[in-house]
Amino acid sequence: MKFSISRSQFIKTLNDVQRAIASKATIPILTGLKIAVSETGVTLTGSDADISIEATITQSDEKAQLLIEEPGNIVLPARFFGEIVKRLPEDQMTLTVGEGFQTTITSGTSSFNLNGLDANGYPHLPEIDAENKLTLPADILKQIISQTVIAVSNQESRPILTGVHILVKDNQLLAVATDSHRLSQRKLEINNGQGLEYDVIIPGKSLTELSKIITDDLEEVDLRITENQVLFTAGPIKFYSRLLEGNYPDTDRLIPHDATTTIEFNTQKLLASVERASLLSHASQNNVVRLVLDPEAKEGTIYSNSPELGNVQESLAFENLTGEKLDISFNPDYMKDALRSFGPTDIKVAFTSALRPFTLVPSEDEENFIQLITPVRTF
Amino acid sequence: MKFSISRSQFIKTLNDVQRAIASKATIPILTGLKIAVSETGVTLTGSDADISIEATITQSDEKAQLLIEEPGNIVLPARFFGEIVKRLPEDQMTLTVGEGFQTTITSGTSSFNLNGLDANGYPHLPEIDAENKLTLPADILKQIISQTVIAVSNQESRPILTGVHILVKDNQLLAVATDSHRLSQRKLEINNGQGLEYDVIIPGKSLTELSKIITDDLEEVDLRITENQVLFTAGPIKFYSRLLEGNYPDTDRLIPHDATTTIEFNTQKLLASVERASLLSHASQNNVVRLVLDPEAKEGTIYSNSPELGNVQESLAFENLTGEKLDISFNPDYMKDALRSFGPTDIKVAFTSALRPFTLVPSEDEENFIQLITPVRTF
Repeated sequence: MKFSISRSQFIKTLNDVQRAIASKATIPILTGLKIAVSETGVTLTGSDADISIEATITQSDEKAQLLIEEPGNIVLPARFFGEIVKRLPEDQMTLTVGEGFQTTITSGTSSFNLNGLDANGYPHLPEIDAENKLTLPADILKQIISQTVIAVSNQESRPILTGVHILVKDNQLLAVATDSHRLSQRKLEINNGQGLEYDVIIPGKSLTELSKIITDDLEEVDLRITENQVLFTAGPIKFYSRLLEGNYPDTDRLIPHDATTTIEFNTQKLLASVERASLLSHASQNNVVRLVLDPEAKEGTIYSNSPELGNVQESLAFENLTGEKLDISFNPDYMKDALRSFGPTDIKVAFTSALRPFTLVPSEDEENFIQLITPVRTF
Repeated sequence: MKFSISRSQFIKTLNDVQRAIASKATIPILTGLKIAVSETGVTLTGSDADISIEATITQSDEKAQLLIEEPGNIVLPARFFGEIVKRLPEDQMTLTVGEGFQTTITSGTSSFNLNGLDANGYPHLPEIDAENKLTLPADILKQIISQTVIAVSNQESRPILTGVHILVKDNQLLAVATDSHRLSQRKLEINNGQGLEYDVIIPGKSLTELSKIITDDLEEVDLRITENQVLFTAGPIKFYSRLLEGNYPDTDRLIPHDATTTIEFNTQKLLASVERASLLSHASQNNVVRLVLDPEAKEGTIYSNSPELGNVQESLAFENLTGEKLDISFNPDYMKDALRSFGPTDIKVAFTSALRPFTLVPSEDEENFIQLITPVRTF
């Protein structure tokens, strides 16, 4: 096996594939990067058994200046190989595999010899032959991920809640996540569903990694689903993830549809106030801030205290406060995550009582995005 | 005590003073920030017993918009107070101390109450009444610090080597540091010494912190020394450090004055080569790279290897290689620190034998800056 390539292009692809490679792995070969050279291109593969990423640089990509002298396969220690490639002196580099998987990497006057591994020992990627695919705009998919993964549980006690529930039906995609303290739900109309129906749970960690390879220059991402795997195709990158097995709880019934108190905020202003209040709640044992809304007096106030350090109170800026007087306490970190997910916009917050979950929706689009936060009982 | 002030100016000063404040301290009050308000200004003090920093904002500083209503003193939890001040909603903030050291910080509609401490419990800063002072250009002092602290020992087994030895005599300042594996020495002519003579050892950590408060807009720093303290005055900031007690070893005799092999490098190119070689040395147990210089063949080559991962060799770019053939091994991290301290310039490296320390000096200024590295015996 022998090829030479432009280092800058190679590094770009290498960075994408390395996202899937852990520095420690139960199967030792998975700390390696698989390089497969065919007559027409170089394919890099990385995997941590949950996620696998495969990307191909083809000879037709002029920027890559790829010159293939001899096809073949090798597995190299990923982290270490990556560090070497990033530090080589010239833009062009040549990789040659010799006897006993000894691999030579040369660039300018620098020459590295690395002990490689037999690529035949590398696990096979899942085969996904699904003909049906769903095509999503790349920026929308990235937004859906960032809006839902915040509510994914990071506790392994209920593994099913560490994923995002994806439902596709009747030309609509529904993405929901909840850690049982909060919930985030996003809807999207799709016009290329062709009668597709999916009901799957994708690990939150997989989606977070996927999100990092969805760059701004990408227009679309294809989605293919089989029984226990999902494949996202993003330009030259194939991103595989296992699916979570089990039944996701019925989240529909958790979302309240009526309200006794409603109020509108600018997310950025409310976020700054909650961040200030959380300085004190973080210093106390029960990380809680208190919100008092008084529609008659037209006042909204946030409070927090730490017995050791002191306390804070702040009058909030708001619009359209209506309904009953309310005195409610909640975890400010859930509120911060939720507010950040809306971006700089106005939101409507609806409460039913001090002990029932409250909802946040964008004032301009109440239908397609909803965040729900369960309050904390303090009495 | 009561004053109001522009938050942006206050934060700038607070950031400087906070450098001296540790989040944990043997004397609990030292986790606090002392605020002293006089008729004319606000003085902030932070200390970790080794270093103390004091900075004053005066009413004459228009940007500070300082309005003093009532003088007084208070100590507030430093880290926490800093976080609050940085997140307040408006630029102006007001600080009021009431009964029982209860302190109220208000800005816009936000109001924090903090439990303060009696400032009478705060340690007194060292009194330095030395009339004699040495004035150094701020940028040069910063350069001297960065060039010498790299060679300071971080091992407490020989505490004296954790400092930089400063010798002032005959209108010359000499700064030396060594951890016994390497040495860095910088000389500076001074024209305002007025016959001053100092022989002191300043902790390397103190100098590193001092360096951070020497900003680009500063022209000069004054240096005052007493028996066991040094005071640097940098604009509105007073920076105190204790001195290390004991006798610094005689480093003069360590520096060789003759050479059997000499060579010139561009620091940036050599640094890149050493960084590449160190990728492999870092992965092996004895962190060593090997340098072979052959004046007859006009070749210079760097090698490193890790039994587990592989090996590297690279022909070096150099000028003016003269003298005897040499085969020497050294710790690449010492070499990297040394090369970075020269900045992008050409250097002359002089060797006497494979087991004797070698020296690095700038090609353009061989007299005033020298780095010395002890090789590693590998046979």
